[in-house]
Amino acid sequence: MSITDKDREMIEELVESKLKKLLSDRKKRMAIVASKGTLDMAYPPLILATTAAAMDIECSIFCTFYGLDIINKKKNKNLQVPSLANPAMPVSIPNIIGALPGMTAMATMMMKSWMAKVNVPSIEDLLNIAVESGVKLIGCQMTMDVMGVKKEDLIDGVEVCGAAAFLEYAVDADITLFV
Amino acid sequence: MSITDKDREMIEELVESKLKKLLSDRKKRMAIVASKGTLDMAYPPLILATTAAAMDIECSIFCTFYGLDIINKKKNKNLQVPSLANPAMPVSIPNIIGALPGMTAMATMMMKSWMAKVNVPSIEDLLNIAVESGVKLIGCQMTMDVMGVKKEDLIDGVEVCGAAAFLEYAVDADITLFV
Amino acid sequence: MSITDKDREMIEELVESKLKKLLSDRKKRMAIVASKGTLDMAYPPLILATTAAAMDIECSIFCTFYGLDIINKKKNKNLQVPSLANPAMPVSIPNIIGALPGMTAMATMMMKSWMAKVNVPSIEDLLNIAVESGVKLIGCQMTMDVMGVKKEDLIDGVEVCGAAAFLEYAVDADITLFV
Repeated sequence: MSITDKDREMIEELVESKLKKLLSDRKKRMAIVASKGTLDMAYPPLILATTAAAMDIECSIFCTFYGLDIINKKKNKNLQVPSLANPAMPVSIPNIIGALPGMTAMATMMMKSWMAKVNVPSIEDLLNIAVESGVKLIGCQMTMDVMGVKKEDLIDGVEVCGAAAFLEYAVDADITLFV
Repeated sequence: MSITDKDREMIEELVESKLKKLLSDRKKRMAIVASKGTLDMAYPPLILATTAAAMDIECSIFCTFYGLDIINKKKNKNLQVPSLANPAMPVSIPNIIGALPGMTAMATMMMKSWMAKVNVPSIEDLLNIAVESGVKLIGCQMTMDVMGVKKEDLIDGVEVCGAAAFLEYAVDADITLFV
Repeated sequence: MSITDKDREMIEELVESKLKKLLSDRKKRMAIVASKGTLDMAYPPLILATTAAAMDIECSIFCTFYGLDIINKKKNKNLQVPSLANPAMPVSIPNIIGALPGMTAMATMMMKSWMAKVNVPSIEDLLNIAVESGVKLIGCQMTMDVMGVKKEDLIDGVEVCGAAAFLEYAVDADITLFV
């Protein structure tokens, strides 16, 4: 028997449709590194992750360096917005004023009130939504060692692992972001 | 009919070459989140996106949080460089000096003159090149609500969407970056 | 000859196994943009890259903007931690204190001692490990032009290229991160 041109064409079509199916059937995945511990930079990983979870995209957030604060229950209710060195602040204040005591608290209060006004959930609520919707929150082992943070300092439902385990996960992700 | 070993071999080769072709024919895609509104961090998404467009890589920039300023026509001509809290500034100045009035403007002027000297286009020019070369610039709906920014405040040719629509796009991208 | 249902099934299986093999045979790859030149943000790209190399994931770091300092041998022994504008600093100090002369040096010294205490290698050691384990360190040509940095100012074993060459590499990467 020999494979005819028609067979060949049919086989090629079959390959194409099967490939599309295989690629679209695969569960999509997002891997985020959260390295910042300020209030303004705690929102993006949590908003992206909870949105992804609602779209049935599997998601993990690796909380490292200052980003560990986001899942540290002693700290995550008090994440703050820097009041200086960001000329893109919506309400622009000179750095010399931004450096004054109380200005960090004021910038933080302002951001919280803006977010609440348009019904963006608080960091605490976003963390609850994340855990409930299956987002994996991961504490970076090395950061915990450096900062002297223990597993029991972290919120419930969190895992702890190293960079290698996270990279193992991220290498098969469709979206990878370093925040 | 039964497929002989030779047929199978031929079919395997056919499948492999077709698969490779399908995978490499696919148009490449980059999805960038621009979250910073300082002049120094406005360059990277625009330089990467316009370079990608010239290489026939499809590209979208999702402008969120402070990054919305980059496409806000009331603000994007005045993006500034923070003059303190960045010990990696090319001209190192003590923070106590960097906090003085006028230093943000000076740091901004210096960066603009360095960029111009080696013919890096201005942010305004990069935005024009981006739009002309098919880079999709997207305003984040939530940020617009939070900041009270309207569609008409944004430059021409911009789309507005939420995080979900952006993730839908990013999940099929080959390069995903959070700036 | 006509392709029977059984043949079709066989071909679909073939596509699936062939695709899996193609995807798993391919060497995994990570592409990182390092855009920050502070000590705290120099660690993540180097820790991730050296970890990846140990897992047989191919890795390149494109050092651009302030991130060029990481591979600049005149500067990379003196990378510093900003002592203000980061309310997530482990030892919280008011910005007005953080702005005082000497505070950047103190914050830097503190971070170095924390890292050393749990045996995190220094930036210098991480760079050596990176080069030895095959991580490609790349200086951004445009940044070098802007800052007046020459190839001989960079550490040994570094390449120099533009954004286009880096994107060419990144478009086939499994993990892409902008630090």
